[in-house]
Amino acid sequence: MNTNRLIYLPLGGAGEIGMNCYVYGYGPEDKERLIVVDLGVTFPDMDTTPGVDLILPDIAWLEARKDRIEAIFITHAHEDHIGALGHLWPKLKAKVYARRFTGTIGKLKFEEYGLPTEAISIVAARPETVTAGPFEVQFVPVSHSIPESSALVIDTPAGRIVHSGDFKLDRSPIVGEAWSDEAFRAIAAEKPVKALMCDSTNVFSLHPGRSEATLADPLRDLIKGARGMVVATTFASNVARLKTLAEAATAAGRTVCLLGRAMRRMVTAAQETGVLQNFPRTVSPEEAHDIPRDHLMLIVTGSQGERRAASAQLARGKYLGLEMKEGDLFLFSSKTIPGNERGVIRIMNSFSEMGVDIMDDAGGLYHVSGHANRPDLEAVHTLLWPQMVIPMHGEHRHLREHARIASGKGLTSDVVTNGMMVDLTRGIEVVEYIETGRTYLDGSVLIGARDGVVRDRIRMALNGHALATVIMDESDAPLGDAWVELMGLPERGKTGKPLAETLENQLGEFLSRAGAKVLRDDDKLDEAIRRIVRQVAMEEIGKKPEVTVVVSRLMEG
Amino acid sequence: MNTNRLIYLPLGGAGEIGMNCYVYGYGPEDKERLIVVDLGVTFPDMDTTPGVDLILPDIAWLEARKDRIEAIFITHAHEDHIGALGHLWPKLKAKVYARRFTGTIGKLKFEEYGLPTEAISIVAARPETVTAGPFEVQFVPVSHSIPESSALVIDTPAGRIVHSGDFKLDRSPIVGEAWSDEAFRAIAAEKPVKALMCDSTNVFSLHPGRSEATLADPLRDLIKGARGMVVATTFASNVARLKTLAEAATAAGRTVCLLGRAMRRMVTAAQETGVLQNFPRTVSPEEAHDIPRDHLMLIVTGSQGERRAASAQLARGKYLGLEMKEGDLFLFSSKTIPGNERGVIRIMNSFSEMGVDIMDDAGGLYHVSGHANRPDLEAVHTLLWPQMVIPMHGEHRHLREHARIASGKGLTSDVVTNGMMVDLTRGIEVVEYIETGRTYLDGSVLIGARDGVVRDRIRMALNGHALATVIMDESDAPLGDAWVELMGLPERGKTGKPLAETLENQLGEFLSRAGAKVLRDDDKLDEAIRRIVRQVAMEEIGKKPEVTVVVSRLMEG
Repeated sequence: MNTNRLIYLPLGGAGEIGMNCYVYGYGPEDKERLIVVDLGVTFPDMDTTPGVDLILPDIAWLEARKDRIEAIFITHAHEDHIGALGHLWPKLKAKVYARRFTGTIGKLKFEEYGLPTEAISIVAARPETVTAGPFEVQFVPVSHSIPESSALVIDTPAGRIVHSGDFKLDRSPIVGEAWSDEAFRAIAAEKPVKALMCDSTNVFSLHPGRSEATLADPLRDLIKGARGMVVATTFASNVARLKTLAEAATAAGRTVCLLGRAMRRMVTAAQETGVLQNFPRTVSPEEAHDIPRDHLMLIVTGSQGERRAASAQLARGKYLGLEMKEGDLFLFSSKTIPGNERGVIRIMNSFSEMGVDIMDDAGGLYHVSGHANRPDLEAVHTLLWPQMVIPMHGEHRHLREHARIASGKGLTSDVVTNGMMVDLTRGIEVVEYIETGRTYLDGSVLIGARDGVVRDRIRMALNGHALATVIMDESDAPLGDAWVELMGLPERGKTGKPLAETLENQLGEFLSRAGAKVLRDDDKLDEAIRRIVRQVAMEEIGKKPEVTVVVSRLMEG
Repeated sequence: MNTNRLIYLPLGGAGEIGMNCYVYGYGPEDKERLIVVDLGVTFPDMDTTPGVDLILPDIAWLEARKDRIEAIFITHAHEDHIGALGHLWPKLKAKVYARRFTGTIGKLKFEEYGLPTEAISIVAARPETVTAGPFEVQFVPVSHSIPESSALVIDTPAGRIVHSGDFKLDRSPIVGEAWSDEAFRAIAAEKPVKALMCDSTNVFSLHPGRSEATLADPLRDLIKGARGMVVATTFASNVARLKTLAEAATAAGRTVCLLGRAMRRMVTAAQETGVLQNFPRTVSPEEAHDIPRDHLMLIVTGSQGERRAASAQLARGKYLGLEMKEGDLFLFSSKTIPGNERGVIRIMNSFSEMGVDIMDDAGGLYHVSGHANRPDLEAVHTLLWPQMVIPMHGEHRHLREHARIASGKGLTSDVVTNGMMVDLTRGIEVVEYIETGRTYLDGSVLIGARDGVVRDRIRMALNGHALATVIMDESDAPLGDAWVELMGLPERGKTGKPLAETLENQLGEFLSRAGAKVLRDDDKLDEAIRRIVRQVAMEEIGKKPEVTVVVSRLMEG
């Protein structure tokens, strides 16, 4: 029997926060026509991915089926949803759909990478509908921490799916469309919702989310009370926050200057696409120079402590001629993402050394989250009352908690993580496990997470690297001494003698005693040298380095 | 004029949380007799100190003046106060004083390193007094998150100093002495306090600290409500918490099993020194096996997500025959130290995948801090009303905030960070800046933080490592081809060809063209090869690796 399936397959974002990539398919088994929702990145860290530039979903499964892809839909312009588009689109070459602001950001990326911007089509909000094979897709405005974030209504012959995207229930979001219960009620009234794929980020936040509008007064008061220059940082893409901050500055009698390339690019894109209007007048860094410090407010990039962003630059000293001084105020109008604490704290302490006062969101006055909290999620469950709730956009613990809540309300719900293919015509039933993983953008090259490249880097970082070279003459006898070079290892061991010298002596002793059978055999020689280097190093410095052995054999010419 | 000075010089712990080491001196300039308070460590991380085992204060200044050291006092047995004692004592060889529990932990360390345990003298609490040159020192019991934490009263000819150590105002601490306002009031009444050196860790916590005793009921209720096995983690040294947890388990009808070497060692030391009494009966992991899951509670090490501790082992699977299952409960009775979030979250998600419920301290019910909060600090300021308050045990932002608060109350206060030598006979006046830094324990070797070893490791981790070897014959002509080995670098570049091969070809081309002047000169040859490898790699993979060049020259024999 060849019945049609409605499949859901997350390739990224389900079991992690970041790197979102969700696949839907409809049709006979293994012939489903596919759409992709979002192509995002996640960010590397020194612990697990040193030297890596970006982490992308592994789309090998999609690539092998690219003829079956009808379209790619991008819900919003955050990097964890759009960041991989420029890197991975060439492998898929499907048509891309997004709303105006998101599409504009996407086209800027395409221009940067020399890709055809016409591959990205701009779509208006529902009721406008994109037909992509068996799918009819509409963009539904939701509020979030970037303009024009959208949920998707995905109609299929097997029923209606709502893919929430990232959202919060903000009824006064300052920039962009307010959350509308009415709109979501209408979606469910129009057609019953078979499945809701739902943002799980804030499932552990127990109070209802607060609106962007609640920040205006506290921010204005804080800025009014400041003596020196005020500098605030938030995500560059949080255009509403930029406006809230700028308006608070203006209300407190200050002129605003935006610092950081990403921030100026976002504001420009938002203004050009019409999503940002009435943004207070800003001045350039050069003009800011001439404004008295107590009449100036900088809004800068780098809320997560990123080393190259404006806030880190200011923490190190002068940046574009501007400088923090004793009595200034630095405000983190942001939440520190877990894992970024060290970088943020480093900046705080640098400012502290300069005599700058620091304000963060510990009091809950100067930042609101962009994601729906637990009561908000429950409200959406109730509004749509879908047949199934499938949590997404969360680590396993978030997905599990979200499923637990939905199940507790009598809705069918379960955890579906990256690589689990579910056939929604049969409930939440896993029909196949797809090998998924991560792809690293490393310099200009894409490498697999399991290629061993990063593993070797981590090993060198933990253990150092010793290189031993020996030259063998035409009769397979060592020519001259063994030579050892060390990198990332202490110069001297416990004997006080240079470690390289000790290693060379021990290798010399070994070579002078080794039999022809070992000396003739590259593998045996390599293994013996490696073993000696590791043993001697262990005795001398208490550490076994990574070892590279180079045996050069002179050939009889 | 050769007047006596009373100097204070932090070598660690002032400007960071960790690695505590404070020096006091009294006498004529540069002839002061010295005492050292605490010799602690701080812990490495992959971002800044990959491969390092421990970070110790740089005590070069002390070592050069070891004849002037009268004694070393250890306030309590936390690693950031005692952890460097075994490693650095051989460089100082001064007499060590501590109270019984702390001294016992110190002696265990000395045994481990083959040091003379009789160098550590056990001292009773005040009024017992240690005379150390011009100093008279008393240990004053305070409450903290380890037994027998002590403040020091340090009497000098220039006045009385109170060195707070780590403390909180716990009047019902479960294990060890309660905080006593009376004791501190008496100290100030006896003699005016010239200077208070004061813990600053929790200066940003605005509410008064809570007592260990408040945890008993919530913990008992939580454990009573659990269906499966309950596992709780906290710091091994938090003996009071171990008791609170074990008693809550017993009250909930469960048998307790302690997992993790550090935890069993701490409990044993606490019991043998008499600080821990009436600890509920525990069973071994083997015995635990036979106890029904709903009657068992494990208390385990690894609250900070440490990879080798019991909690991480359980997150990976079976550990000592015990295993987490669906419906079990895992409790973090602890706070995640900033920087450790990723490791803790990794464990949470592993448990989530096993169907284990996770409880952390987000609700504030299952953990209390061991440090005094802001109102508590202010209470101590008031109790002692010292002439000066010098904040310690904090990052710069903590010290600055603490000084601000003390100044606001009319006390003389200022920020003194590592390396700043203050002469307390002249107020808080910096009389000298000492070159301070960090020493790394790396394997079995102590290396300076600025030796370049760790810098090279970080570079290899970020950029990979390429090795190029060439052999030059007796007439300085290349013999055979250049040989390139790569570690931590992608195998293939954008041309699709093996990167090593491309590099070898380019080097071969260069060698065939290079003039005798370059080929004869090791430095020029090295530089040219390095430049080519970096350039070609940049073109091929968008990355400039670290390069090691080995030029072997055959000598005319």
